[in-house]
Amino acid sequence: MSLSGWWLGFALVVLIATPEQGETFMQKNRKTALLQGDILIGALVSVHHQPKKQSIKTHTCGEIREQYGIQRVEAAFQAVDEINSNPDLLPNITLGIEIRDSCWYSSIALEQSLEFIRDALSDPSGLSSGAGSSLCPRPNNRTKNIVGVVGPGSSAVTIQVQNLLQLFNIPQVGYSATSRDLSDKSRFSDFLRVVPSDYYQAQVMIDIVRHYNWTYVSTVHTDGNYGQSGMTAFKELAEQFNLCIAKEDTVLSNAEDFVYDEVIKRLLEAERANVVVCFCEGMTVRNLFKATKRNNVTSRFLFIGSDGWADRTDVVKGLEDVFIGGISIKITSPYVHTFDELYFNLSPFNNT
Amino acid sequence: MSLSGWWLGFALVVLIATPEQGETFMQKNRKTALLQGDILIGALVSVHHQPKKQSIKTHTCGEIREQYGIQRVEAAFQAVDEINSNPDLLPNITLGIEIRDSCWYSSIALEQSLEFIRDALSDPSGLSSGAGSSLCPRPNNRTKNIVGVVGPGSSAVTIQVQNLLQLFNIPQVGYSATSRDLSDKSRFSDFLRVVPSDYYQAQVMIDIVRHYNWTYVSTVHTDGNYGQSGMTAFKELAEQFNLCIAKEDTVLSNAEDFVYDEVIKRLLEAERANVVVCFCEGMTVRNLFKATKRNNVTSRFLFIGSDGWADRTDVVKGLEDVFIGGISIKITSPYVHTFDELYFNLSPFNNT
Repeated sequence: MSLSGWWLGFALVVLIATPEQGETFMQKNRKTALLQGDILIGALVSVHHQPKKQSIKTHTCGEIREQYGIQRVEAAFQAVDEINSNPDLLPNITLGIEIRDSCWYSSIALEQSLEFIRDALSDPSGLSSGAGSSLCPRPNNRTKNIVGVVGPGSSAVTIQVQNLLQLFNIPQVGYSATSRDLSDKSRFSDFLRVVPSDYYQAQVMIDIVRHYNWTYVSTVHTDGNYGQSGMTAFKELAEQFNLCIAKEDTVLSNAEDFVYDEVIKRLLEAERANVVVCFCEGMTVRNLFKATKRNNVTSRFLFIGSDGWADRTDVVKGLEDVFIGGISIKITSPYVHTFDELYFNLSPFNNT
Repeated sequence: MSLSGWWLGFALVVLIATPEQGETFMQKNRKTALLQGDILIGALVSVHHQPKKQSIKTHTCGEIREQYGIQRVEAAFQAVDEINSNPDLLPNITLGIEIRDSCWYSSIALEQSLEFIRDALSDPSGLSSGAGSSLCPRPNNRTKNIVGVVGPGSSAVTIQVQNLLQLFNIPQVGYSATSRDLSDKSRFSDFLRVVPSDYYQAQVMIDIVRHYNWTYVSTVHTDGNYGQSGMTAFKELAEQFNLCIAKEDTVLSNAEDFVYDEVIKRLLEAERANVVVCFCEGMTVRNLFKATKRNNVTSRFLFIGSDGWADRTDVVKGLEDVFIGGISIKITSPYVHTFDELYFNLSPFNNT
């Protein structure tokens, strides 16, 4: 047994690496959006992009996101307003919502979830006060009564948040986390979602490939649970229907340009594989398109994308020549005209 | 835009799924082992197996583990004792350790990490009291001064714990988490480890395969970060050296028997692929061996295993006929004879 020797090793390393004094990330004041109510829904929305490689250490989020960020925040507020003004929904109860920024990033989402947990435990009705012994409830003058959490957007981040929330029996509802893994009720007992599992999406992709009699395709997926579980489903089906995979690659959404260049170079090696099936988050698709352009192979590939791409303009803007002929999948959802009315009448200067 | 419609959907689902009253998992009293000291190391050890499928909902851990559990606990205590009795190491400071059971399972490890965080924030020296505003420090009569966390064993669980600990700048040291992903300092800023990255292990596996001129092998990996990142590294190298992958499969460590039977059946489909490269946790290997035996194909495959298997007797006990001819990789570590002396003289009845 060599275990004892190892332990001696860690003990010393730990002592050298004692925590820094002063500020921790948890002290960072991130902006939140709050609509007060008798009961509150906590919502995690990626209002900013995930931290860039060089800003991860300071947990500084990236650029602001309109479609995945601001629009979802405004849509959430509109939905809550509609519920509150409808006498048939929750009569005599005012629903509120507190929206926090998850920045599409696990540790930031966990940080914000801890805030929700504190609020859930300090439920002024006293119903869940028994759990207060584990994590500190807020002082009594706090009046937030969080009853559940909605979001976040990313499957990988949702899984991590769910692992934390289930310890406190706080229900969580996903609005865009489609990973097949999240269907496993034994692992993710307090999670429900309003979007279908990626298992069905993989089937649609296979159907497209078979429809066009493509028998030799390459694949790329975003590193993380969404891409991995989706691509696993695709490959299981591909085997069943005797489709051959030429090259397969995986890449982090926020990887640097040269990493994407390498992906394109590897795809080019399979000379007769022109179709690239991409089970990717939107920003992975965008970076892949950019790399295609950078490497002057604009019309070489035909991309098939999942709902991470869907019909998002922020994915394809300025890269229209690259994705011509591409096919992407979008989850059916009705067009909400009242949202357009609200959204296009908002002013960024006074938010009214 | 259909976003508003979706949000209405979640809002209602959340309201139906309000939290259960009464006990949450965080109230569960899990046993801990504590050796008091001026400063404490928190340690996460998998003293029990992960919850079985049917016990996940109640977060009830599986069977007790001797090699990965009890032995590591005893080795940790011995290491701390050695440091304290050595006048050259940490003079005038008594090192202590608090060991918590992570059960090789993410949400249980997160639950136990929250306890460490509370102790770290209530540092009686007052050094890190600034962070106390975020998560509640324990009452003043608590005297635990956790300065860092060692463990847990699993890479996937380590990543989730690290995402939480880095919010509080609590350093973490891995003793067996070998995933290549954990080398990314920008994502896992407060993590160090005393074991090498799986990138090197994948190279060793490739070297073995090439040494024997095997050009057509199947692969299996444990679903989760350890298996995924290890297998990704293996496949990258396999492509480089023109090795062909016959079948590839992925399976959860605690999956049920019929799932493992299906894996074996798929491996059998590749009639000329006899070598199975398994980037797997120990229990995945054991379940695979059991399924091989159950399906009466004992001498059909030759398994190549990673350090999850290594030379562990708890993996192969009773299945010696299945693994004959197999090759597994073990990380170099010196034999600690003093540990044997201590361990074999312990009595399970009075723990002395």
